[in-house]
Amino acid sequence: MPLYLKPRKLDFSSGSEPLAVLNQHEAEAYGIQAGDRVELSWDHEKVIAAVEISSSRVNSGEIGLWREVWRGRRLRRQSVVEAELLSRPPSIEAIKKKLLGQELGYDEVYAIIADIASGRLSPVEITYYVASGFVKPNTDNELYYLSRAIAATGEQMNLPMQVVDKHSVGGLPGNRTTMLVTPIIASLGLYIPKTSSRAITSPAGTADTMEVLAPVTFPLSRIREIVKRTHACLVWGGGLNLAPADDRIIKLSRPLGLEPYDKMIVSIMAKKVAMGVDYLVIDMPVGDTAKITTRKLARQLEDKFIYLGRRLNMKVKVIKTLAKEPVGRGIGPALEARDVLRVLQQKPLKPQDLEDKAVYLAGELLELKKFCRPGEGERLARKQLQSGAAWRKMQEIIEVQGGQPNINADAVAVGAYRYEIHAPRDGRVGLIDNRAINGVCMNLGAPHEKIAGLHLHARWNQKVSRGDKLLTLYAPSKERLELGLKAQERTPVMTIS
Amino acid sequence: MPLYLKPRKLDFSSGSEPLAVLNQHEAEAYGIQAGDRVELSWDHEKVIAAVEISSSRVNSGEIGLWREVWRGRRLRRQSVVEAELLSRPPSIEAIKKKLLGQELGYDEVYAIIADIASGRLSPVEITYYVASGFVKPNTDNELYYLSRAIAATGEQMNLPMQVVDKHSVGGLPGNRTTMLVTPIIASLGLYIPKTSSRAITSPAGTADTMEVLAPVTFPLSRIREIVKRTHACLVWGGGLNLAPADDRIIKLSRPLGLEPYDKMIVSIMAKKVAMGVDYLVIDMPVGDTAKITTRKLARQLEDKFIYLGRRLNMKVKVIKTLAKEPVGRGIGPALEARDVLRVLQQKPLKPQDLEDKAVYLAGELLELKKFCRPGEGERLARKQLQSGAAWRKMQEIIEVQGGQPNINADAVAVGAYRYEIHAPRDGRVGLIDNRAINGVCMNLGAPHEKIAGLHLHARWNQKVSRGDKLLTLYAPSKERLELGLKAQERTPVMTIS
Repeated sequence: MPLYLKPRKLDFSSGSEPLAVLNQHEAEAYGIQAGDRVELSWDHEKVIAAVEISSSRVNSGEIGLWREVWRGRRLRRQSVVEAELLSRPPSIEAIKKKLLGQELGYDEVYAIIADIASGRLSPVEITYYVASGFVKPNTDNELYYLSRAIAATGEQMNLPMQVVDKHSVGGLPGNRTTMLVTPIIASLGLYIPKTSSRAITSPAGTADTMEVLAPVTFPLSRIREIVKRTHACLVWGGGLNLAPADDRIIKLSRPLGLEPYDKMIVSIMAKKVAMGVDYLVIDMPVGDTAKITTRKLARQLEDKFIYLGRRLNMKVKVIKTLAKEPVGRGIGPALEARDVLRVLQQKPLKPQDLEDKAVYLAGELLELKKFCRPGEGERLARKQLQSGAAWRKMQEIIEVQGGQPNINADAVAVGAYRYEIHAPRDGRVGLIDNRAINGVCMNLGAPHEKIAGLHLHARWNQKVSRGDKLLTLYAPSKERLELGLKAQERTPVMTIS
Repeated sequence: MPLYLKPRKLDFSSGSEPLAVLNQHEAEAYGIQAGDRVELSWDHEKVIAAVEISSSRVNSGEIGLWREVWRGRRLRRQSVVEAELLSRPPSIEAIKKKLLGQELGYDEVYAIIADIASGRLSPVEITYYVASGFVKPNTDNELYYLSRAIAATGEQMNLPMQVVDKHSVGGLPGNRTTMLVTPIIASLGLYIPKTSSRAITSPAGTADTMEVLAPVTFPLSRIREIVKRTHACLVWGGGLNLAPADDRIIKLSRPLGLEPYDKMIVSIMAKKVAMGVDYLVIDMPVGDTAKITTRKLARQLEDKFIYLGRRLNMKVKVIKTLAKEPVGRGIGPALEARDVLRVLQQKPLKPQDLEDKAVYLAGELLELKKFCRPGEGERLARKQLQSGAAWRKMQEIIEVQGGQPNINADAVAVGAYRYEIHAPRDGRVGLIDNRAINGVCMNLGAPHEKIAGLHLHARWNQKVSRGDKLLTLYAPSKERLELGLKAQERTPVMTIS
């Protein structure tokens, strides 16, 4: 139902898009909100404008027109302007359809993703889309459409050589294997342009941890140079525009700490498409408190990865590992970076579990690429660590990314506000609660506060005596330390049974 | 450990949630990040705000406050604002649970609703909750919990006596029965504290129409006095804080144009609980152009209303009426008020359909309350109109709310710019288009212009001869009249077939 309004030329210029001002009462009566789009027509003219609302600048029954509307068009004093609210972008209808449990086709998926990428959909509208994934799981087809659409609406790496990659689906605190696998693989001459994420629902992502050692934010053109020179990079993928729609979706998943499985798969695969990955090993920790909780679920996800890989022309292998407790000792960017350096520098305090897992994954990737014979990968990978070749490659990467390549593991700065938690009695360490770790570390300020986090002195099933150190909390401020302690009191990271 | 900061009012409005700006260095020192939530308190005020960080807009030691923080609160230049970092509210966990398809208990529902009401949950977080209703419809239990929680987190009327009420689910132009039922019921000594809404997308709400006769905006304390004195009131509910959580939820449902029926029922029932209603008659128009389109849907909603009434200790009766055309002759605040007065004053021009419907609803309410024997209600209600008792009661209400109680129906001011539309040929009046009525009346200026609107001289299926009056348009100005006419030409209110 259009409005008919008397025009009033306003001597304002927005410098870009045409704006039209409606009286507040009128706008309210018609349910028109600031930012809505209207199509204006009069005599033989037609123009689309965004609505501004004012209670004083125009009277009821009038429409104020900025210069961009009337300049170059015939508008007489007696003209009557017809204003019709433009129907919402079609992607809104697709979102509603999905929210009501129906399957979408490629054009609908593409419309939503393109409007998310371009910023036409508001955060609240995107949230409805994110939430719609809970109404009914996406079909395999929808997942493929999403991966394609997300990659198609972003930038692409376009390297002229074959590219390998390793990706962890996460959910396990610590587990900073990427920062070990990458230099191991690159030290053997393969190309591994690694983009990583920042933390979503955890105390640190690989990008957060790498940033302790070197900058991780570069334009794609610079990353191409880095990779051509060192065969590798360890950069933040979110700083690129590989998957702008996915970045917005992830941002809106944060408040709830939600990451639905199929969104996760799509997010990973879309970025692999954008990076031009040909061979991909996926590390999938499985366990009660990890992101993937059961073997059955793990197999379902594996199937989806393989399915999408096939449709997207990528060789994929999924490595399911048992997730009983964190991998490594430190949790939080700086504390995890210290662990990684301890392995690369083969220090006495190196966390052996972290080293073993990285070597295993690197070995699988070498075998998937047929770089070595089956069964030879792990040995080859370990050699690169022990010979120092992996550390030298990492120094190269750190240097070319603008960090300090001569950093010593034990010189990494960690939070000055500390609190040690001791065993209240003799006994054994029970299962370590990964969710409690996340809660405590986030309350301590991680990942934004690099130096926040905790160090595990004891591991699952270890015998401890009353008074033994169990964990140390690190915080950037007294307030943060108190919040972390509160979280630890409510849901303890470790219990003694 | 809270921060103590000097307030600085900023003239920015976010349009939604309260925002507070901290200096970057301060925020870093205290480990506070953008997007964190802080509880601000000063003097006797308390408000939760989301943190923005700026390196230039506020100095160290200052806190910049957006309009949503300080508007409506006492903030002196010398006030010191205490800011305390909030950890994530536990209601987030409940929202996740619901989004994953699980049923919530009362404590969880209450936690969510309380955090929505207090502003601890952000718009995006609330959107997840709204969307969760699509994952799995709310169970009857959850609807009950919601109604209770929404009422419990707002202001309450707390009258010491039994209270009756009548509510229309809306969607029908005219239909101003509330302004008749209320004085009829109160004239018999029952208590009926009526709160009504303003128009959102229609030419008038009951609050807009009543405002033609008297002010309708009062604080709850004053409403209590009015009701104690006259047994009734006819006030605007939106000015009260009866259901703050519901108000926010409704606002976030708008972008997608979603109004699930469940949410509508909860919204109504929560406000009835807040008003302390014991007996409730619900008028539910059913028809193609009404809010409720089918008999089947009407029966489902009836069941839910009755169920919630039982659990909330409220006796509820749903009256389903056929919605074929407007009830009454006038559309628009003043024209509807004139209809109401014509019935109350039993004028020759009174619209009989409006009187009959009001008498019917009032009769049902009297029988529901067991104020009279079954079958006696309607007669009793009609008697109150005919004896003048209802009009005398309405005069009392108008007077105590600050209006002019001696107004004569035919002296109600209506738009001086008028246009009569006549039948172009002999024939019968076809179906009257409610949406066309809305379009014409809004172009004439209703509801903001009280005197704008239209009067229907003919009704559906009535035989008319060429030249008979069909409708009269009323406008506050020549321009407005022209705008209304244009809308009428494009989509006519009435056609002759």
